[in-house]
Order: sequence, then C-alpha cells, then structure tokens
Amino acid sequence: MVNKVNYLRIATEEAFLTQDVLKGYMRLLDDASFQDPGFRSLWGFYGKHQSPRAKFIHESLLDLGAKRIADMDASGIDHQIIALTAPGVQVFQPAEASALAVDANDQLAEACRRYPTRYTGMVCVAPHDPDNAVKEMERGIKKLGFKAVIINSHTLGHYLDEPQFEPVLAAAEALNVPIYLHPQTPPPSMIKPFLDAGLDGAVFGFGSETGLHMLRIITGGVFDRHPKLQFIIGHAGEALPFWLYRLDYMHGATVRSQRYPFMKPLKHPVSHYLRNNVYITNSGVAWQPAIEFCQKVIGVDRVLYAMDYPYQYVPEEVGFCDAMTIPDADKKAFFEGNPRRVFKLDI
Amino acid sequence: MVNKVNYLRIATEEAFLTQDVLKGYMRLLDDASFQDPGFRSLWGFYGKHQSPRAKFIHESLLDLGAKRIADMDASGIDHQIIALTAPGVQVFQPAEASALAVDANDQLAEACRRYPTRYTGMVCVAPHDPDNAVKEMERGIKKLGFKAVIINSHTLGHYLDEPQFEPVLAAAEALNVPIYLHPQTPPPSMIKPFLDAGLDGAVFGFGSETGLHMLRIITGGVFDRHPKLQFIIGHAGEALPFWLYRLDYMHGATVRSQRYPFMKPLKHPVSHYLRNNVYITNSGVAWQPAIEFCQKVIGVDRVLYAMDYPYQYVPEEVGFCDAMTIPDADKKAFFEGNPRRVFKLDI
Repeated sequence: MVNKVNYLRIATEEAFLTQDVLKGYMRLLDDASFQDPGFRSLWGFYGKHQSPRAKFIHESLLDLGAKRIADMDASGIDHQIIALTAPGVQVFQPAEASALAVDANDQLAEACRRYPTRYTGMVCVAPHDPDNAVKEMERGIKKLGFKAVIINSHTLGHYLDEPQFEPVLAAAEALNVPIYLHPQTPPPSMIKPFLDAGLDGAVFGFGSETGLHMLRIITGGVFDRHPKLQFIIGHAGEALPFWLYRLDYMHGATVRSQRYPFMKPLKHPVSHYLRNNVYITNSGVAWQPAIEFCQKVIGVDRVLYAMDYPYQYVPEEVGFCDAMTIPDADKKAFFEGNPRRVFKLDI
Repeated sequence: MVNKVNYLRIATEEAFLTQDVLKGYMRLLDDASFQDPGFRSLWGFYGKHQSPRAKFIHESLLDLGAKRIADMDASGIDHQIIALTAPGVQVFQPAEASALAVDANDQLAEACRRYPTRYTGMVCVAPHDPDNAVKEMERGIKKLGFKAVIINSHTLGHYLDEPQFEPVLAAAEALNVPIYLHPQTPPPSMIKPFLDAGLDGAVFGFGSETGLHMLRIITGGVFDRHPKLQFIIGHAGEALPFWLYRLDYMHGATVRSQRYPFMKPLKHPVSHYLRNNVYITNSGVAWQPAIEFCQKVIGVDRVLYAMDYPYQYVPEEVGFCDAMTIPDADKKAFFEGNPRRVFKLDI
C-alpha cells in the first residue's frame, strides 16, 4: 500500500543496463588478462550468481519498460532519474567505451521518450576518452534531453582530479549540468583488505572509495578552477558530511604544514565545497537520522531523495521516508522540489 | 582561559612515544627494504619534517612530564588515558616488537606512578607475537595497573579478525578490559589512491582503514565468539555510526545471497554489535552534530570524550565541547562518567 502524499516522489539514483554492456562485462569476466578483482567480485555476482537477489537485480537492470513502471507504481515512485549502472563503460578501452556509451544513451533516450512523465536520463560517458566524452555530453544534454552526467567513480584506477579529465569537468560546467559521482568497486590498488572480508561492495567498499574520490576532487582544487561545477553523491554523501569537522581541521593542518609539496591551499575550507558544489542523495539510506544530519550540516536545499532501484528495491523504505518527523516543507523539498530544481525537470 | 565545569574532563585517546620506539621508526625509514609507503608518509613527517606542526607533535609525544601536565592544565584536561602512538610496535618483527612493548609499558607505568591523579595507561602489545602479547597484557593489567589495551589497527597488513589473533582477543575478554582500536596508516594493499592525493593520514585514510578494521571484526564474528569483549574506536566511531543503516541492510542482503562463501550469518545485525560491544570517542571531532548523532544512534552511555593530544592540541575545542547544548547529565557522562566506568578509574 502506497501512502498518499502531497508531493511527487522523484528518485534520483536509479540504474539500468544494456544487453551490449552486459555482454562486455561477461567478456571481461572470461578474460584472464583483465586484472580487476573488484570487478570480478561485483559482476561475477550480479552477472552470474543464482541467488534471488542477484537474479532480481540482473533482470530489473535490463528492463526499461512495463516491469520497471510496475515496480515504481507498487512503491509509489512517480519519476526516476536513470543512469547506466556501475561501472558503466569505464572498464572498457576508450574506443569501445565511447561506442557503448553512445548506444546506451540512445537506448535510455528512447525509453525516456516512451515514458516522458516517468523517466529522465543521465548521460553516460567514457572519461578516459575525453574528446568523445565531451561530444557525447553535448549530444546527451542538447539533443537527447538528459539532465546530468553519470560517472561511476574511478576509471581504471584514475580519478577526476587528474589533469586528463579537465575537459570533461569543463564541459559539465559549461553545459550547466551536475555530474553524479556514483560508486563502483574499489580499484586493485585499494581493494585487498575490503575484498578479503567480503566488504568490497555496497556494504562498505563503495562508500569508502567514492567518498575518497569526492574528497580528491575537492582537495585537488577542481572547484576553485570550476566554481559553478556541481556534483551529486549518493548514500547520504558517502559519509563526507559526518566527517566535515575533521576534514576541515586536518586538511587545513596538512596544507599549512606543507607535508605534501603538491597539496596546495584551497580558496575555502573543505566544508565550503560540500555546501556549495555538492548535492547529496539518500540512496540506500532510508534513515531519518542520517538524512536529517545531512540537511542540518550541508543544507535542506542540497539533500535529495533516491531509492537506488533495483539494488535496494524496498517499497516499505519509501514509507520510512514519508514518515520522517521533519518539517513538511523540508520533506517536499527532499522528494520533489530539490530534484526538480537540480535536474531542471519539466514534468 | 579554562571554563569552570561540574565534571572532570577525562581525555581518553592521548598519545606518547618512547625514544627507543622512535629510533626504531627512524631505522625503518632508512631501510630501503621496508616497503610501506604509508609508514614513510606518516613517520617521514612526524619524525623528520621541520614544520611547526611536526615538531610540536614530535616533541610532545616524547614527554610524559612537566610539559604534558602544563598543556593539560592550560586546556582544562584533568586526566589523560595514554597509549603508545601509532603504529605502536606493530611495524617491527615479532621479537623486537614485544621487547619494545615491554619497555614502553614500563616507561608509561613509571609516569602513571609519578602522576597518579593525571595519567592512566593502556598496555601496548605486539599482536603478531600472540603468546607474548597475552603475557604482556596480563602484566600490564594486573601488575602495572593499566586499564585497556591499545592496538594500532592492522599489523603489517593483517587484521584482528584473522585466526592468529584469537589469543589476544580471548585474553582481553578474560581480563575484562577494552581494546582501543586506534588508527594507523592504510597498508600498502590499500593506500595508493589515498597517498597519491595526500589523503592517507588523519584527514581521511586513517578513518577509512580503521572503520574497515572495526567492521571486519564485527562481520568476522568476533563478538559472537567473544560476547563480553569490548572495543573502543575514536573519531566519532570512524563514521560507522553514520553508516549504521546501510551496514545492516547490505550486510544482511550479502549474507542471505551467499555472495561470499566464507561470510557467515551473525547472531545479530551489525548495529547490535556497535551498540553492545563498541565504545566511541570524539577524538579529533569536537563537533556537537557528530557527537550528538553518536549519542542518539549508539547510546549516551557509549560515547566518551577524547582530545587526541598532541595531534589535535586545540584548547578552544575543549570549550566547544563544554558548550554543547545537550542535557547536563549527558555531558557529564561524556566527559567523566563514561570514561570512569569504561576504564574502571579509581581517581
């Protein structure tokens, strides 16, 4: 039973997958020369495992039609902001990655045309093929009607603060669209103590790695170079809001001491960028204490609803969020007003 | 100026260093065969860097006398719970590590005898020399009067959920003393994307690694095997309280799906262990939102004050904590009642 509420529920971190990208993942799993234990852990599970969880997610990711709409209706989701699931095309070599991105974007755009009141797309790109990534961002935003860019964290172990990705960041700023920095598995250079304990996935590895990535973007000076650029991170901000005080104190102390010759002063404390260049969704965290904490320390206008379909398709969690004991205006901003504004929706 | 307050301020994660352990660190820095980039980053800085921050910390760590007492008086700290600083003796080979631990414990015990109302000790051990570690824990608790065990996170890349450390965990439970799981640098198998951006230290790497370690201890079933065992983690629980909802959901889903053959069901959800086997200090986080969040979701009786001297010797932060707008009883529990109970203090 879905509660009647006086707001649209717009879910902002929802995933899909194309058959061709899935085939590419399966090929990498069968290729012993592809050395990425985290990818094998992730797609060995969602691609091949026979558990009900893996099969449901596998099947639901591939559907942009009646099944997805029925699941949305059953859980009270009015609108999904949809992106190619992790790791997107970022595990493929650049030329193949860009070709697969174009095809995935075309398929998502077609679904958005079929269900214009239910779906909005994010454009996926191959950040390691920056010229084509910029072209595809322009096509996705200007021609296909997408409203954001999805980047699934690191690209073959490389991070967006590295100089080769400057054109992608500049293009997002120029196009005036946010980049959703979605988790993926930690890279081989980080994963071992997570993987050895089965903690490499969404339970903990994802958040540690994506939080690190967002922090690298901030401390690497990306927002001093691109002050209008906006990022979105899920999972209650990958815990960065909780770390806010320590980030400010220790980053400041580290820069002042010149411990790392390459670490330059920023124009503002780390928290300034979290409050001015980062939006936060509650994907996977249908829990008032963490949502309210983010609203309090980052800002009510910067916290957005997300379900994380199909990875966390839990209809009763929608009810948990409906039932939050926060001001009605803040709840409406969370579910509808902020998503409308951040994604410039015309639904 | 120190505020007058109606509680003792007992700081529970305070650090010192012996000259012999420091000499050992300097020897490792000069030994090209010691392959640990995080250790080089950490002790290359605190051991050799000429910045005011590095020099103040270096000098203050080595002092257990008049300077430390003066700093405590100047900042209003009545009592310190003191432990050998990270990475303790855990970077040395087992025999040397155990010998250095005995000496460090003797020096700390001597200081505690000189300042019985001001200092309480934690016993340091070499977890990778488990038989001697157990003997030293017994000596430290029963003969030297120490009230807890300090373990500086991983030991040469190994984690306390691994079977070789069982005797150490069993001894802590039998002795009825908590283990303080203090951060150290991420191991070589994890550090690269942190270190490349200068984020390997207290700013972010420490918390990610120690949070992972505490979570491994929980999900590895340590508290099902040792239900009375208690751990303490600093830095507002290394963000695990903030992750609580997601940990319960994703750990449960992962176990049910049998994604990892070695990951067995626990008797309780992850949050149960955080609320029953883990104490939290606010070292480095003199910030009401995070402290109050931990009190709310973990329990007022499980959150303790810490300064993190000398790494974060910021007298005005004591005032921030004094000024928290929480019930007086909760503030007194935080600063005095909980530390007295958890460390069985007789001051």
